[in-house]
Amino acid sequence: MIVVVCLNPALDVTHHVPTVDWAGVNRPVAVRARPGGKGLNVARTLHALDADVLLMGLIGGITGAGVQAALGALGVPAALTAIAGETRRTFTVVDGAGSAALFSEPGPQVSDGEFAAFRGRYEQALTGTAAVVLSGSLPPGLAATTYAELIDAASAAGVPAVLDTHGDALVHGAAAGPAIVKPNLAELEAMAARRLANPDGVDAMAVMAAAENLRAAGAGSVVASLGPEGLLAVTGDSGRWRARPSTTVAGNGTGAGDAVVAALAHGLAIGRPWDERLRHAVALGTACAAAPVAGEYSHAVYLSSLSTAAVYRDPVRTQEVG
Amino acid sequence: MIVVVCLNPALDVTHHVPTVDWAGVNRPVAVRARPGGKGLNVARTLHALDADVLLMGLIGGITGAGVQAALGALGVPAALTAIAGETRRTFTVVDGAGSAALFSEPGPQVSDGEFAAFRGRYEQALTGTAAVVLSGSLPPGLAATTYAELIDAASAAGVPAVLDTHGDALVHGAAAGPAIVKPNLAELEAMAARRLANPDGVDAMAVMAAAENLRAAGAGSVVASLGPEGLLAVTGDSGRWRARPSTTVAGNGTGAGDAVVAALAHGLAIGRPWDERLRHAVALGTACAAAPVAGEYSHAVYLSSLSTAAVYRDPVRTQEVG
Repeated sequence: MIVVVCLNPALDVTHHVPTVDWAGVNRPVAVRARPGGKGLNVARTLHALDADVLLMGLIGGITGAGVQAALGALGVPAALTAIAGETRRTFTVVDGAGSAALFSEPGPQVSDGEFAAFRGRYEQALTGTAAVVLSGSLPPGLAATTYAELIDAASAAGVPAVLDTHGDALVHGAAAGPAIVKPNLAELEAMAARRLANPDGVDAMAVMAAAENLRAAGAGSVVASLGPEGLLAVTGDSGRWRARPSTTVAGNGTGAGDAVVAALAHGLAIGRPWDERLRHAVALGTACAAAPVAGEYSHAVYLSSLSTAAVYRDPVRTQEVG
Repeated sequence: MIVVVCLNPALDVTHHVPTVDWAGVNRPVAVRARPGGKGLNVARTLHALDADVLLMGLIGGITGAGVQAALGALGVPAALTAIAGETRRTFTVVDGAGSAALFSEPGPQVSDGEFAAFRGRYEQALTGTAAVVLSGSLPPGLAATTYAELIDAASAAGVPAVLDTHGDALVHGAAAGPAIVKPNLAELEAMAARRLANPDGVDAMAVMAAAENLRAAGAGSVVASLGPEGLLAVTGDSGRWRARPSTTVAGNGTGAGDAVVAALAHGLAIGRPWDERLRHAVALGTACAAAPVAGEYSHAVYLSSLSTAAVYRDPVRTQEVG
C-alpha cells in the first residue's frame, strides 16, 4: 500500500464565463466542483493506476464534507481525520480566451490535538506500507517541521517517503532524509535564491547543482520537474538522469507535477529501476498535462509517451555534447 | 406564522482581495460564506424581528447542506424539501476599493416530483398561517407559473401572499392576485419596457402608472422600492403613498429590498395600517442597507429611521407641489 498524506485538501470550484465583467454580475455557463489539493491529486492518480492507495489527511466543515463525498464518488480510499476548521476552497474563473484568475482560500487552523489525532492514525497505517507520499502545502497552525516529523516516523517504521512541498516545509523535510524529493523549477529557484533558467530554457547545470544541494541537505534522491522540458534526477544509488517527453502537451501543469509524484511513489513501491521509474513519471506527467482536470490523465497519451519518452544518463554532459 | 418560500437558495461566498490579479493567483485576506437567496434573507430578517417565521423551499447537495447548517446556526426555523440537484453558490470578489465582481451559478434542475413534494408540505403549512412570502428567482425546471400556483393555493386557504420576483414569474404571479407585489425600479422598467427614471431621479408619475398596471393585472397592492428614494405604494384599500428615509445610507441594496418585503409581510400579518406598514418598511430597508450583510440590519438605524422617515399620501401631487 502507498499512504498519501494531504494535510490541506480543497474543494476546487471553476466557473466558465465567456466574457467576464470584473465589476458586475456574471452568469457562468459551466460550473465544476472537484476535490483537490496536491496530495489528493496524487492519490487519485495512484488509484487510477490501480495501485493500492490510502489517502490520509485533515478534513473539516461543510466544504470538507463536499470533498469527502466527491472522493467517495471517485472511489479513492481515504481515512481523513476530522478537524473543527473549514476545509478551504479554491475558485477559478476561466474566460472564453482561456485566461484564468485563481482565488485560493487559506486553509483551516489546525490545533495540536487535531494533528496528534491524525499522527496517531498515520503511524498505525505505516505498518505494511511500501511508501509514503507527503504532498502540498501545510495548513495554518502546523509547524514547518511537520513533514520532517512524518518522515522521521516513516523512517522509524522502515517506510520510504516521497516529499513534494515548498519553502520551509521543504527545507526541514529534505533534512529528515526522504527517499525522494520532487521540487519544480520555481521551488528550486526559491531555495537557490536565483533563477535557474535563461531565455533558451532551463539551465540544466544550475538545476543539477541545486538538486545536489538538496541531496546534500538530506534527500536520498532529487527529481526536478521542469514542465515541458521533463525531469532531471540526481539519485543516490544510480547517478544522474534526464527524462524528456517526445512531444509537448499544452495543459494542466499542476496535475502534471502531481502525476510525476504518483509515478515516482509507485515506482518506489514496486521497485522499478530508475530509468523505468523516470520513463513512467515523464509519461504520466505528459498524460496528466493532456487531461483537463488535475488528478486525471489520458491513458492513450500515457501509453504512447511511455514508448517515445527519452531517458538518458548523465544529462548535463549529454546536453552539452548534443 | 409567516411562511417564506425560497425555491432557489444559495451559499453566498465572498473573497476580499486588496488588489485583484484578474489573470493570476490571488490569496484572499478574508473569506465569508453565508446562506443567501432573497427568500432566505426575508426569513432571516423576520426572525430577527422576533416574528414567527417558517422558511420553506428546495435544498440539495453539499452546498445545500452548508446552507442548512448555517441556517441552523442562525436559528431560523426551516422546513426545506430535499432535491437531487446541487443548491447554487454565488461568488463575489471585493477589492480594496470596494469594487465587486459577482459570479452567480444557475440553480439546480428541479423535477416535477420534487416540486410536488414541496407543494404538499407548503399546502399543509398554510393552515394557521397569517401570510406567505414568495421571493426570488425560480430554479431551472420550474414553470414561470409556479408562483401563480402557490398564490392560488394560498388564496384557497385564505392566506394573503407577498410576491417579490421578476420577469415572467412576476407577470404570471401578479395575475394570480397576491395581496402585495414588491417590484424594484428595474423590474418595473422591464415590465413597462421603458426607463422610469431621468437624470434628476425617479419619475414618480411613470412609476405610479407602472404600479397601477400591475394592480390592474391582478395585484391587490403594489409597493415599488426605489433605492435611496424610498417606497412608492399603490394600495387597493388606502390609496397612494410615498415613504422616504430621512437620510441616505450607502450599503447593501439587495438586503434593503428583502428587508422591505419582510416588513410588508410582517405588517400584513399583524394588521398594521398602510402608513405604519410603509414607515416600518422604509426604516427596515434603511437599517438593512446600513448592515454589511443581506438579511441583517442595524437596530439603532431601524429605530431612528422609524421616527424620522417621511410617509405621506398621494405622492405624485405632493412631489409636483413641493
